[in-house]
Amino acid sequence: MIYADYNGSAPLCEAVKNHLIQRLQNDGPYANPNAAHKIGQRVLTNMENSRAICAKSLGAKYGQVIFNSGSTEGIATVFHSILEKAQQRGKDILITSTIEHSAIINTAEHYRDHHDFELYFIQANKAGIVDLEQLEELLEKFGQRVALVSIMAANNETGVIQPYKKISQICHNHLVPFFCDTTQIIGKAPFNFKDSEIDYAVMSGHKIGAMTGTGLIIAKDPTSIRPIIIGGGQEKALRGGTQHYLGLETLAIALGHVEKNFERIEQLKEKRIAFEANMKKKFPKLCIIGEDSPRLATTTYVSHPGLNGQSVQIELENHNIFVTTSSACSDGDTSTSKVLKAMGIKDEIGMGVVRISLGLCARLEAYDEIEEALTKTYEKLMGS
Amino acid sequence: MIYADYNGSAPLCEAVKNHLIQRLQNDGPYANPNAAHKIGQRVLTNMENSRAICAKSLGAKYGQVIFNSGSTEGIATVFHSILEKAQQRGKDILITSTIEHSAIINTAEHYRDHHDFELYFIQANKAGIVDLEQLEELLEKFGQRVALVSIMAANNETGVIQPYKKISQICHNHLVPFFCDTTQIIGKAPFNFKDSEIDYAVMSGHKIGAMTGTGLIIAKDPTSIRPIIIGGGQEKALRGGTQHYLGLETLAIALGHVEKNFERIEQLKEKRIAFEANMKKKFPKLCIIGEDSPRLATTTYVSHPGLNGQSVQIELENHNIFVTTSSACSDGDTSTSKVLKAMGIKDEIGMGVVRISLGLCARLEAYDEIEEALTKTYEKLMGS
Repeated sequence: MIYADYNGSAPLCEAVKNHLIQRLQNDGPYANPNAAHKIGQRVLTNMENSRAICAKSLGAKYGQVIFNSGSTEGIATVFHSILEKAQQRGKDILITSTIEHSAIINTAEHYRDHHDFELYFIQANKAGIVDLEQLEELLEKFGQRVALVSIMAANNETGVIQPYKKISQICHNHLVPFFCDTTQIIGKAPFNFKDSEIDYAVMSGHKIGAMTGTGLIIAKDPTSIRPIIIGGGQEKALRGGTQHYLGLETLAIALGHVEKNFERIEQLKEKRIAFEANMKKKFPKLCIIGEDSPRLATTTYVSHPGLNGQSVQIELENHNIFVTTSSACSDGDTSTSKVLKAMGIKDEIGMGVVRISLGLCARLEAYDEIEEALTKTYEKLMGS
Repeated sequence: MIYADYNGSAPLCEAVKNHLIQRLQNDGPYANPNAAHKIGQRVLTNMENSRAICAKSLGAKYGQVIFNSGSTEGIATVFHSILEKAQQRGKDILITSTIEHSAIINTAEHYRDHHDFELYFIQANKAGIVDLEQLEELLEKFGQRVALVSIMAANNETGVIQPYKKISQICHNHLVPFFCDTTQIIGKAPFNFKDSEIDYAVMSGHKIGAMTGTGLIIAKDPTSIRPIIIGGGQEKALRGGTQHYLGLETLAIALGHVEKNFERIEQLKEKRIAFEANMKKKFPKLCIIGEDSPRLATTTYVSHPGLNGQSVQIELENHNIFVTTSSACSDGDTSTSKVLKAMGIKDEIGMGVVRISLGLCARLEAYDEIEEALTKTYEKLMGS
C-alpha cells in the first residue's frame, strides 16, 4: 500500500506513534496544564518544552509560538487580528492570490462580503508562481490602504514553492504586513521563520505526521494577535481553551522527525524527477503541472489529456495506491480546480489530474511502484 | 494516587486508552476524512459513526452535532453566530450570570466592550443557584431587545446544577434563544439535549476522559451557526479545518463509557455525602459550598475558616491527592474566586476552599482516603 496523499493529511509518523503508545501505556500525565497541582505542572512543562522545540525547529522565538487546532484556525485568527484594527485606521484593502487554499480564499471573501474590504487577487503564471510585478503595482497604487497581503509559501495542489522571501521584502518596502500560509511547506522543506521575514506563519500538525487537531501560529509580534477563541486566558490570552497538550507534544516530535528527513530531500527529488521523466517517455503527451518550477520534493501533479482524473484515482486504488484528484477538499467536484484555472490550464488537462504527494519518510522504491501502477492505469484507460 | 481535578480536566478513560493503543498498533486508518479515496472514506465513516453515537448519547439529532476543538471554541462560535445577526435586528442585550466560567464571562464582556452590547448579570443566591426571578424581570423589561441568554448547566467550581430546563422555558416564553454552557454537566450527570429544550449546548472531550482538543456544539437549528473558523467547507461549512478525527472517535467512546457509569451516580453521591458529613463532624466549622443544592455527584468544594486553600492543596499533594483551589484557570490567584464572591461567600471561607472533583469511574474508597488525608491536613495546618 502506498499512501500518496500527504499534502491532504499525513499518517501519524512512527516516532509520534511510539511516543503515544508509550505515553498511553505509562498512563499519564494527564491534567489541565493550567492547574497549579504537580500533575498539571508536569503537563505544562512537557507542553512548554514542545513549544521550545517547535520554535527552534521553525526558526522562531519561543514567545512567538501560539498553539491552536491547526492552520485553518490560524488563518481565521490572523485575518481577525489584523483586519479589524487595520480598518479602524483606514486600511481597507486585502491582497491575496488566485492559487491560495480555499481556507484563505473563503476567509478573504468573507471580509470582502461582510466587512467592506476591497479584495485583490494576484494572478499566477503557467508555472504556478504568483506575479510579483502585479503585487508591486498594487502596493504602489494603494500604498497605505493595504491592510494585509496573504500569499502561500507552497501550493497544496501543485507543490510549487512561491518566492515568499521576496514577497516579504516587497511587502515590507511598502510597510504592509505579510501573512504567509506555510501549511504545505512546513514538514516538506526547510523553513526558517526569522530568515523568511514573514510576519505571520501557520501550520497544521496533521500535515507532518503529528496528531490531528494540532497546530500553531508564529507571529513576529505576538502582541498583535487578537483571539477569536477568547476563553480563560490560556496561551497568554491569545487562544482560549485548555490546550490539546497530548497532540502538541506530538507536534514537537513530528518536527524533529521531519528535520532528520531533510537529508533525504535531494534523493527523493531526484527519484521523483526520474519517475516523471520515465512517465513522459512512455506517454509523450503527459503534462506535469509546474514541472519546471521550484517544487516540494515529493509532489507530482500529473495529467494525461483525454483521461479523467477520477478514473485514474480509482484505478490506482486497485493497485493499492491512494492519491487525490485536485484538492483534497474537493468533495467529488470533477471540474478543473480553481488553482489550475488560475494557472491557465485548460479543462482537457485540468480534468485529468491526480496529485501524488508523499512524505519525506517515503521509500525511494515507492516511485517505482507508482510508475508501474500509473503506467498500467493509463494503458488500461486509453485502451478502453 | 488520587486525581481529584476532573472538573479541570479528566485523565483519558480506560476505554479511550485501549482504543487508541489498539488503533496506533493497527496503524490506521489515517487520512483526510474529506478525501475521496478509500482510506479517507474509512476515516470519514468512523467519524460519522462517532457523530451518531455522540448525538444519540446526548439526546440530539445527528445533524445537530458540529465537531470542534472544545467548549471554549463552542462558546465563541455560539456568541458569534447569534450576536452579530441579532444586533442587525435591534437586539443589543446579552444576559448571563455572575457564576459563569471565565470563558463565558470574558466572551460576553468582549461583546459589551467591543460590540456595543448591553450586558446584564443574573445574580446567584448563597446556595449557588441563579436567580430565576431576576431573569424573568429582565426579560419582561427588555423583551424584544434581548439577543441571547447564556447560563450554565452545572458550575465548574461548586458543582451546583442550575435549573436549566426552567431557564429554557422562561427564555422561550420571551422568544429569546438560550445558550447553556453544558461543559460540566456532560459526563457527570445524564443530559438530554432535546428534553432540555436548550437552543445551543457545548462540550469538551477532555472533561469526560476523551482526547484533548475535541468537542462539539449541539445546535437545535444548525443553520443558525456561523463559523468563526471558515476554512474549506468541513462540517457542512460550519467549522473549517480538517477534523481531529482521532480525537473525535474517542469522544464517542468516552460518552459510551460515561453512560455505563451513570448507574454509579447514586452510590458515589451517597459516599460523597457521607464523606462530607464525617468531615463536618470532625471539623464543625467546615463549610461545604452549595451543600444543600442539587450538585454533581462527585464535586465537593470545601473550606475551613482560617486555613489557606493553597496550603491545603499542597498538603494534600503530600498525600498524593491532587485537587485545585478555586477554578483551574486561576493561575495562582489566592483571592476569593468570582463565583464565590457572586454567592456572597466571605473571604474567610473563600480563601480556604479546595475543589475535590472525581469522575464517575472513581473507586468508592477514594473518599475514605481523601477523608483521611484531608483530616490529617486540617489537623496539621491548625496545629501549626
